[in-house]
Amino acid sequence: MPGARGSGHQTLRVALLGCGSVGSQVARLLDEQAADLAVRTGARLEIAGIAVRRLAHPRSAGIDTNLLTVDAPALATRPDVDIVVEVIGGIEPARSLLLAAMKAGKSVVTANKALLAEDGEQIHAASREHGTDLYYEAAVAGAIPLLRPLRESLAGDTVHRVLGIVNGTTNFILDRMDSSGADFGESLEEAQALGYAEADPTADVEGFDAAAKAAILAGLAFHTRVTAAGVHREGITEVTAADIASARALGRIVKLLAICERSGAGVSVRVHPAMIPRSHPLAAVGGAYNAVFVEAESAGQLMFYGAGAGGTPTASAVLGDIVAVARNRLAGTRGPELSTYAALPVLPMGDTLTRYHVSLDVDDRPGVLAAIAEAVARHDVSIRAVRQEGRGDDAQLVIVTHEARDAALAATIRELEALAVVRAVVSVMRVEGEEALL
Amino acid sequence: MPGARGSGHQTLRVALLGCGSVGSQVARLLDEQAADLAVRTGARLEIAGIAVRRLAHPRSAGIDTNLLTVDAPALATRPDVDIVVEVIGGIEPARSLLLAAMKAGKSVVTANKALLAEDGEQIHAASREHGTDLYYEAAVAGAIPLLRPLRESLAGDTVHRVLGIVNGTTNFILDRMDSSGADFGESLEEAQALGYAEADPTADVEGFDAAAKAAILAGLAFHTRVTAAGVHREGITEVTAADIASARALGRIVKLLAICERSGAGVSVRVHPAMIPRSHPLAAVGGAYNAVFVEAESAGQLMFYGAGAGGTPTASAVLGDIVAVARNRLAGTRGPELSTYAALPVLPMGDTLTRYHVSLDVDDRPGVLAAIAEAVARHDVSIRAVRQEGRGDDAQLVIVTHEARDAALAATIRELEALAVVRAVVSVMRVEGEEALL
Repeated sequence: MPGARGSGHQTLRVALLGCGSVGSQVARLLDEQAADLAVRTGARLEIAGIAVRRLAHPRSAGIDTNLLTVDAPALATRPDVDIVVEVIGGIEPARSLLLAAMKAGKSVVTANKALLAEDGEQIHAASREHGTDLYYEAAVAGAIPLLRPLRESLAGDTVHRVLGIVNGTTNFILDRMDSSGADFGESLEEAQALGYAEADPTADVEGFDAAAKAAILAGLAFHTRVTAAGVHREGITEVTAADIASARALGRIVKLLAICERSGAGVSVRVHPAMIPRSHPLAAVGGAYNAVFVEAESAGQLMFYGAGAGGTPTASAVLGDIVAVARNRLAGTRGPELSTYAALPVLPMGDTLTRYHVSLDVDDRPGVLAAIAEAVARHDVSIRAVRQEGRGDDAQLVIVTHEARDAALAATIRELEALAVVRAVVSVMRVEGEEALL
Repeated sequence: MPGARGSGHQTLRVALLGCGSVGSQVARLLDEQAADLAVRTGARLEIAGIAVRRLAHPRSAGIDTNLLTVDAPALATRPDVDIVVEVIGGIEPARSLLLAAMKAGKSVVTANKALLAEDGEQIHAASREHGTDLYYEAAVAGAIPLLRPLRESLAGDTVHRVLGIVNGTTNFILDRMDSSGADFGESLEEAQALGYAEADPTADVEGFDAAAKAAILAGLAFHTRVTAAGVHREGITEVTAADIASARALGRIVKLLAICERSGAGVSVRVHPAMIPRSHPLAAVGGAYNAVFVEAESAGQLMFYGAGAGGTPTASAVLGDIVAVARNRLAGTRGPELSTYAALPVLPMGDTLTRYHVSLDVDDRPGVLAAIAEAVARHDVSIRAVRQEGRGDDAQLVIVTHEARDAALAATIRELEALAVVRAVVSVMRVEGEEALL
């Protein structure tokens, strides 16, 4: 398999598909760190070619333009290529390229969360069928080593829960809303102006990016198959300044969380904004950083924190994978296969146990709390804490529920909204983290 | 190599050396999770025997006493054993057992930080010579996946610095001193009463345990060889209530840190108490928890957090390694070799750049600060910030220096202690973390 020898080491040839913010950094690092990488892998890693969309596009200084080609399919299957690195993103042509590369026996490294979350089954099947490596540490949480610990370090443990902040754009926007009191629209504009959000921010602010990552995390954590379609997804576009203020008044902060839980019956995978206590370690994760908690039976609570995006941090994760597949290739072996043997059902959101925070403007007169408590009880939901504050002839009432089925909680909220004593619903949001009290 | 078949899987036989708090949990988990582990590794993992010191010692319920033996050397080299797991700790007999096991072709998993830090070279050489696996994730920071990320995920990056809290006992004691104002002795007694410190606490409170971990981390992070003897080590026995109070007055907290730095000339590896800002993420790491920051060229700042000790969390890390070596064994391969190619010199502490906090009781009269500033300048040390507070006829002066050679800073402190205007040195301690100002 490996190509010609050189400087005492075998040579492994890398085809790079994509030369954007991540790809250009991968190319730079392969070049700058060539000597170190050769010693660490036991092979010289050489770039065989870089597939781009337009040859004429301006490139950063380190890129050897002689390596550029617009014929990605040919590059991905060229006989002199050992390792294919895909950093194009999106479903097509990435999927066809990876499938063709694996069919041709190439080891594959990809950062493509969308593809893995949508069609991971086909991609993994091709890796099994053709006996090739498939590594994708960079697909979730950028530079943070998270998938390898889940796949390997925790392989002897039972993971119960994964909970984290896995999208830096939304974290930046929510941070701005929290610190400035601005609404979503203004904060998004600011994020766009600073380069933290794209011109079309849909994938981030609607939670698609986080949902893809949650699907991948849940699959690895629970040894089962989860696709993006199985993830309950709510973005942050409907988070209001009132939600942020209501959270703040109670010592909480709003974060977009990705949550993967194993329950007796199956797994629940969801992405939605939630209030967490300001004392929670995730509350301190600011700006474009990511952090993920993993709760395992024996290991207990683990947290992983670092840069969740950006060309260079993501390239670090890609390089780690390139070293791994290079070592495997030289040893004539491959990394651990994805295990999906548990084959757990994915629970609908309505069956997931959650807790809600509800802030209501109500009439300030006796009997209001009783009416509300009765409405809540009708749905078999129990109230964990209530805080009531008079303000002239109306009052603000904040309720945090105990855990209940999400469907029951949603129905409870709808009933509260319709109650005569309720003048307005100021804020409704799920609550996560230990301290649920007011 | 693998033994007989059973239930559709090959069988790999595990010899467990040691059955204390970690070993008994490893035995329990191997048994309880047998079905899951079989699917994940592709082999049934069966305990071939458990080496103990005394057969008659009471055992937890899950331990099959028929497996016990006092003949560890025979067990470690038995022909029907594939994997040897060493959780005895200490140098001998662990070293001889591991060397014999590797000579006999066994894959080895160990949690033995002291042995790896003192004699890692011989242990790794045996693994190379005999082509056997040597995994030791549990040796540093218990359940936290830290060594695998350093060895594998960051294999394509350049690590500049590793800084962390890697000893739970001292972290608990310093926490107690901080929250109660008690001195070291009282807090140690409390830790002993609660089971957080051993009857002979030397290894923890004198920093030996943290120094062994620092040596292992530095070696992996910088691809070089560091032994415990190369680690500058200061424990917490001389941390006073005055140090703690002085830190607190300035928004800082005292932690025992393990610090591994790469500088142009070599590496600096040290364990000592240091003041860090209370806003630093490590400040919030309480009780018996561990947390480690890794700073890499491309990945940026990463943090890993979790349970740093305890039988079950440590067993989780051991199990992850057992799964890895089992997979490797079935694939006829072995994990990545330790790379020490960088062969960097270990710098003496005196040449390491540090910053100091000094709190002095001084005469409250004009000219005192000038005398002190002059003394500091004589050592080519510059002052970053000074705070002076009058209190009747004396004053308290707190100085934080800029970064300088540790030897120059230590000499500066000695000179300050001898100055006529200095009535007493209240507190001297190194400062780490970003915010160094008063």
